[in-house]
Amino acid sequence: MAARRRSHGARTYAAAGVNRKQTSRALAALLGQVRRRPPGQGVHPVQLKGHYAGLVRVGRETLAITTDTVGTKTLVAEALGRWTEVGVDTVAINVNDLAAVGARPIGLVDVISCRRADPEAFAALGRGIDQGLRQSRCLLLGGETAIVPELLQGMDVGGTAIGFFPPGRRPVTGSRIRAGDVIVGLRANGLHSNGFTLARRIVRDAGADWRRPRPGSRRPLGIEFLTPTRIYVAASEGLADVPGVTGFAHISGGGVRNLPRLSEKVRFVLDGWPRPSGLFEWLGRTGSVEPDELYQTFNMGIGFVAIVRSGSLHRSLAWLRRAGYADARVVGRVARGRGVALPHLGLEYSGYA
Amino acid sequence: MAARRRSHGARTYAAAGVNRKQTSRALAALLGQVRRRPPGQGVHPVQLKGHYAGLVRVGRETLAITTDTVGTKTLVAEALGRWTEVGVDTVAINVNDLAAVGARPIGLVDVISCRRADPEAFAALGRGIDQGLRQSRCLLLGGETAIVPELLQGMDVGGTAIGFFPPGRRPVTGSRIRAGDVIVGLRANGLHSNGFTLARRIVRDAGADWRRPRPGSRRPLGIEFLTPTRIYVAASEGLADVPGVTGFAHISGGGVRNLPRLSEKVRFVLDGWPRPSGLFEWLGRTGSVEPDELYQTFNMGIGFVAIVRSGSLHRSLAWLRRAGYADARVVGRVARGRGVALPHLGLEYSGYA
Repeated sequence: MAARRRSHGARTYAAAGVNRKQTSRALAALLGQVRRRPPGQGVHPVQLKGHYAGLVRVGRETLAITTDTVGTKTLVAEALGRWTEVGVDTVAINVNDLAAVGARPIGLVDVISCRRADPEAFAALGRGIDQGLRQSRCLLLGGETAIVPELLQGMDVGGTAIGFFPPGRRPVTGSRIRAGDVIVGLRANGLHSNGFTLARRIVRDAGADWRRPRPGSRRPLGIEFLTPTRIYVAASEGLADVPGVTGFAHISGGGVRNLPRLSEKVRFVLDGWPRPSGLFEWLGRTGSVEPDELYQTFNMGIGFVAIVRSGSLHRSLAWLRRAGYADARVVGRVARGRGVALPHLGLEYSGYA
Repeated sequence: MAARRRSHGARTYAAAGVNRKQTSRALAALLGQVRRRPPGQGVHPVQLKGHYAGLVRVGRETLAITTDTVGTKTLVAEALGRWTEVGVDTVAINVNDLAAVGARPIGLVDVISCRRADPEAFAALGRGIDQGLRQSRCLLLGGETAIVPELLQGMDVGGTAIGFFPPGRRPVTGSRIRAGDVIVGLRANGLHSNGFTLARRIVRDAGADWRRPRPGSRRPLGIEFLTPTRIYVAASEGLADVPGVTGFAHISGGGVRNLPRLSEKVRFVLDGWPRPSGLFEWLGRTGSVEPDELYQTFNMGIGFVAIVRSGSLHRSLAWLRRAGYADARVVGRVARGRGVALPHLGLEYSGYA
C-alpha cells in the first residue's frame, strides 16, 4: 500500500550536511501516524512495501500511482536558463517508476512551485513535458502552478503519474525473483535527476564552469548535467508480458541499492555494472568521492534493469532491441544470499536504505 | 482532458505585487506546447475543460485525478509551530476537488519539499493526513519527501488524489445545469487554504499578533487562520447519485468565480451567499479590501456548493443532513444569462478568471 517514500538526496546530502538519520526519523514519524483502515467501497489496496509505485485495485482495474520531483536539477536549469530538459524529466522520473512495476502510463499531473512564472521558461518546460508525454504515450491530465515567492528560492517541479495493467498483465513486483535469474541493464543518459546536490557541490568546490566542458567531454558541463532522463516505458511494455521476466528496477536515488527493493531474499551480483567512466569518473575524482558512495548515489551508467529467467534472456534481449534499446546487455545475476555486490569493484551493500 | 490549472493566489497576489497577466501568459505558453495525441492502448481521455479534476477512461473505469498544494498557509503553520492542520488540508483540498466532479476518492500521494525534515512537524503532518484520510475514506498510496534547502525557504506541501465512479454513477460536470436550478451551500470552516497571501499581508500590515485573538473572536488569530479545510466528500457521495443533482463546486481560489467553471451558459445568482462576517469581515475592514476582491479571493463562508433541480431540493437537503451537513441551505439560484451576481451586495462577475 504505502509505496516507497523517497527523500531526494537524503543519501547524498550526508556529505552536504543534511541529517539523514533525522530525515528517516521524520518520515517514520509521519507514516507512523497513518492508520490502516478500510477504504471506500469498491477500492482494494494492494500491499507492495517499499516499491516504486503504490498499487490499488478499483473495480476490475489495478492502478499504479507514483509521485516524484526533479529536485535540485532545477538549479542547474536556472543557472543555464534551459528548462526543456527539466520538463522531460518531470514526466520521465514518474513514468519510469510506473515502468518499474510493469504498469502502462495513463496520465500525469504536474506541479510547479516558483517565485514567478516566466513565460519563456514555462514554454520550455511545456516543450519538455510534451516530449516526455510523447515518448511514454501519456496524457497530461491536469496541473497546478503555485506562485509562492515567500516559500521558494528557485523553482520546484514535480508530478504524479498513474498507470494501469492491460488485460492479462499482472504487476511485476520482484516477488518471483530467484537465484539463477539474469540481470539485464539499460544505459542511462547521464545523471538523470539523482545525486544533484552532491554533484553540484563537486562542481562548485572545483570552481568548474557550467558553460565549459569537463576534460574528456565536448559538451558544456551544464548541458551534460541537464541531459534528460531516459524513458524506459517501451522496455517495460515489451517485457512485462514475458512470463520469464521477474522484476524491474528504476535506478534512481540510491543507485544500485534500488535492487534490494525488489527482493530481500536474494543477492544481486552486479559483476557487469560499468566501472566509473565519463561524467561519473570525473565526479568521483574531482570530488574525491569513494566508489562506495558513487554507486549508492548515482546510477553510474545504468538507468533501468530487468531481471529475467536465464531461459528468457535471449527473447528478452530481442524484445528490447526491437523496442529501441539496442544497448541492453547483461550486467549481473541473481545469487543466493542478500544485498548487492559489485565484486569487480570490491563493493558490497546490505540493502535499500 | 486538461483540468484546471490553478495558480495559487494569482488573483490575490495582484495586490501583493505578483504579475497575474504574466502568470496567465506563462501557463498558456506551457499548455500551448502540449500536443493532443492518442494515448496508450486502453486509455481514453474525457474532455472536461477548466474543471476541478482531469477525467480519463481506463478499461471499464472512469478515473478522476487532481493535484493541489496548500500554498502559503504553511508559513502560518511555521510561525505557530503547528502542522496538523496543514496535514488535513493536504488531503482535503484534493479530495474536495474530486468531490466536485462526483468522484469517490481512491487514494492520495503527498509531496513535501522542505529545508529539513523535523520529526515533530512530520508527526503532526502525519496526524493531519490521517484525519483527512479517515474523513474521506481515502488511502495513502505513496509520497515523496524532498530535502532541498537550496530550493525552499519554508515548507511546500501538496498532494495528488485519484478517484473513481462507482457502478452506475456518471461524472457530475455541470453540463445539465439550467435556469431554475437551486444552489445549495455548505458552510466553510474558515479561510480553508485560499487567499493566504492577501490575508497574511493584511495581518502583517496591521501589526496583528498570531497568538492573540482579533476583536470579536476568542481564538488566537493564527489558530483561526489554520482551521483545517472542511471535507465535502460525504456530501458529494450522498448527492452524486441523485438524478436531480446537476453540479458541484468546490469554493477554492477564485471564490464565487468558481461557479462559472461548471457552465458558461447560465447566470449564478447568489442572493443567499453570506455577507462579510467574522474573520472575513475583519480582513476586509482591516485590509481595506473591496467586497469585489473579497468575494473573488476568499470563500466568504461557503466552501462547497451543490446545484439541484428545484424538485430535488427537499430530498437533497435531507440527504445532506443525514451525511452530517446540517448547515446546508439555499444560497442562490440559476437564472438565464451569464456570470455570477450577488445582488444583495451589488457584485457582478463575468466568469472564471
